[in-house]
Amino acid sequence: MSTPTTSTAMDFTPARFCSDTNARTGTLRLTRGTVQTPVFMPVGTHGSVKSMTPHLLKEMGAEIILGNTYHLYLRPGHELIDQLGGLQRFMAWDKPILTDSGGYQVFSLGELCKVHDNGVSFRSHVDGSRHEFTPEIAMAIQGALRSDIAMVFDECLSYPATAEETRRSTDRSIAWAARSKAAHGSHARAGEQALFGIVQGGFDNDLRIYSAQATVEMGFDGYAIGGLSVGEGKELMYGVLDTVVPHLPTASPRYLMGVGTPIDLVEGVARGIDMFDCVMPTRHARTGYLFVGWGRINIKNAVHRDSASPIDDTCGCYTCRHFSRAYLRHLFLSGEILAHQLHTIHNLHRYLTLMAEMREAISAGRFGAFYRQSVQQFQEENHHA
Amino acid sequence: MSTPTTSTAMDFTPARFCSDTNARTGTLRLTRGTVQTPVFMPVGTHGSVKSMTPHLLKEMGAEIILGNTYHLYLRPGHELIDQLGGLQRFMAWDKPILTDSGGYQVFSLGELCKVHDNGVSFRSHVDGSRHEFTPEIAMAIQGALRSDIAMVFDECLSYPATAEETRRSTDRSIAWAARSKAAHGSHARAGEQALFGIVQGGFDNDLRIYSAQATVEMGFDGYAIGGLSVGEGKELMYGVLDTVVPHLPTASPRYLMGVGTPIDLVEGVARGIDMFDCVMPTRHARTGYLFVGWGRINIKNAVHRDSASPIDDTCGCYTCRHFSRAYLRHLFLSGEILAHQLHTIHNLHRYLTLMAEMREAISAGRFGAFYRQSVQQFQEENHHA
Repeated sequence: MSTPTTSTAMDFTPARFCSDTNARTGTLRLTRGTVQTPVFMPVGTHGSVKSMTPHLLKEMGAEIILGNTYHLYLRPGHELIDQLGGLQRFMAWDKPILTDSGGYQVFSLGELCKVHDNGVSFRSHVDGSRHEFTPEIAMAIQGALRSDIAMVFDECLSYPATAEETRRSTDRSIAWAARSKAAHGSHARAGEQALFGIVQGGFDNDLRIYSAQATVEMGFDGYAIGGLSVGEGKELMYGVLDTVVPHLPTASPRYLMGVGTPIDLVEGVARGIDMFDCVMPTRHARTGYLFVGWGRINIKNAVHRDSASPIDDTCGCYTCRHFSRAYLRHLFLSGEILAHQLHTIHNLHRYLTLMAEMREAISAGRFGAFYRQSVQQFQEENHHA
Repeated sequence: MSTPTTSTAMDFTPARFCSDTNARTGTLRLTRGTVQTPVFMPVGTHGSVKSMTPHLLKEMGAEIILGNTYHLYLRPGHELIDQLGGLQRFMAWDKPILTDSGGYQVFSLGELCKVHDNGVSFRSHVDGSRHEFTPEIAMAIQGALRSDIAMVFDECLSYPATAEETRRSTDRSIAWAARSKAAHGSHARAGEQALFGIVQGGFDNDLRIYSAQATVEMGFDGYAIGGLSVGEGKELMYGVLDTVVPHLPTASPRYLMGVGTPIDLVEGVARGIDMFDCVMPTRHARTGYLFVGWGRINIKNAVHRDSASPIDDTCGCYTCRHFSRAYLRHLFLSGEILAHQLHTIHNLHRYLTLMAEMREAISAGRFGAFYRQSVQQFQEENHHA
């Protein structure tokens, strides 16, 4: 079904499979470290996972993080990062990094963005300067960043899109994937860097299958599913996973891009996803939304003013072991940046321990029960809310 | 020379004295822990030393921190902190805390501030609400905060001031100190909380001696020197220390309030000061000024753009062990709050290790040499600069 890739930069071994869902655990060996899957990758946009030292991130169990190619290209520039030894060394994170291709950010942050068959021209959101991204440029930047996993440059379709727009965009992404693979194969660090393809196709099942087949046909080290969590609703998103996953090779890691809430991670794992990234835990932390159970609280609410309770009394994170909601609310309202850090610790802990619980449940042969219980709890919480 | 105090909340033992300066080391035993002197107290204005977790602060060697009465009174309110177990518990800092009296902040931050013999009325800088601080109120707030060391409520003189203003203000501070002592002695937690007097008197030697004698006559657990580092220049400041210290009891800790740069700490210790606090290391961290040698660099400068060097290649802090100037500059310019944290780690490390070096030098009988070398290095750096 898949063309073997030539990369020596990655090895993936699915170890255990759940008997009543598509969940599996595995080990992903990369140039700069080994990752247990399924895994959540905290997002480090500007070369730092916001408010977290690498030391603390590692202590909390993060094994791989995501770097944003678009942001690092604009500031401080990939040449500088290359000159200083690559992104890992630059940010003193000695474990693996996956870089996105910059495509999504070009479309969502770049100004006066123009798509043509060769690539995308845009103006920087930082200083208005003119730039162009093509598959070849995106590969060169990621090569300079020296990430362990690079992503092909794809087009991000706006939602909703017409059938015609979706088909054209899907074809363009496939063409760009082929160019990305060619460019990647010829760059100096190809042997140290795995390359993942991205399945697009919007919310058209046939196009999703067409994209999956074409991408797998080209042959990549892993396969991402892109274009989800764009406002489509959970059922549509889960439906795309159900459609696409059967067309991806069992022996390759599957990565659901930019998703999602805790229950989304559970639903994704149950459908055979191995890797996730999302800004939600770090972004919510900065706005005072803190994960409890399958939902979240807003620490700014007056109800927490006098509360001596931790965010979540079942949570074992540093924040919950030491600080009351009253204290966190006070810090937040006083504009203290320690609030951001303590909130980020809690939210990332929720995500990282949820992944660890799922890996354990799969290994112990009880993920089916874990899944059903999680979905039931989620539904009960939403019913009461 | 001094009236013995009735407090059971503190014990101070000067252990070693330098033979050719007034420096000494000692052990300060407080309700919630023991502090080796001379000591620097990081400032935690809103109940957090900006960007630092208590865990990290302790790991870096901080033994006591300062809390700001004015800020905590306004937000979240001392009653709430009391209800939640006091400031230590509220902020999860299980070592001693010294609280200032709020006087300095009332004068510098409060709006429409009016001084009268009973106290000071002002409007909150947060929401414009009306408030009054008196010696009795300042003691009640610090009692509710449950700090290990409370400070008397004093008047802060503006600089420069006339002879008449200075005399009147000095007398008022002495009267308020007596009221502070009486109020402190009658509050429920007096036995757990030490009380320090504050020597004022501006830049008039006679008034400084008069204030010192009157304050010592009243009898406090320790003696602070206030009203310095207000723009008077280093020689005037050191002159006040030379004038005041001989009038303070050897057996009591001496605290130089709100001072200063690294060389100020050395000059203070040489003159017999045991305790310091200053916002400089934490505030400079947030604006990108980082201590190197006896001076500082501005990490925003373009000269650091490509620099693979740490802030200070002789520094052993977490930041210098892991990150380049180029990375820190990038984080700072990108508005990443991790920059603040990494900068704060470095600057506080400079202050805390400098104090540790001085304690060691005094204990080993070589502080005189340390002092002369430090002053020489400082002068050479300033000569070249």
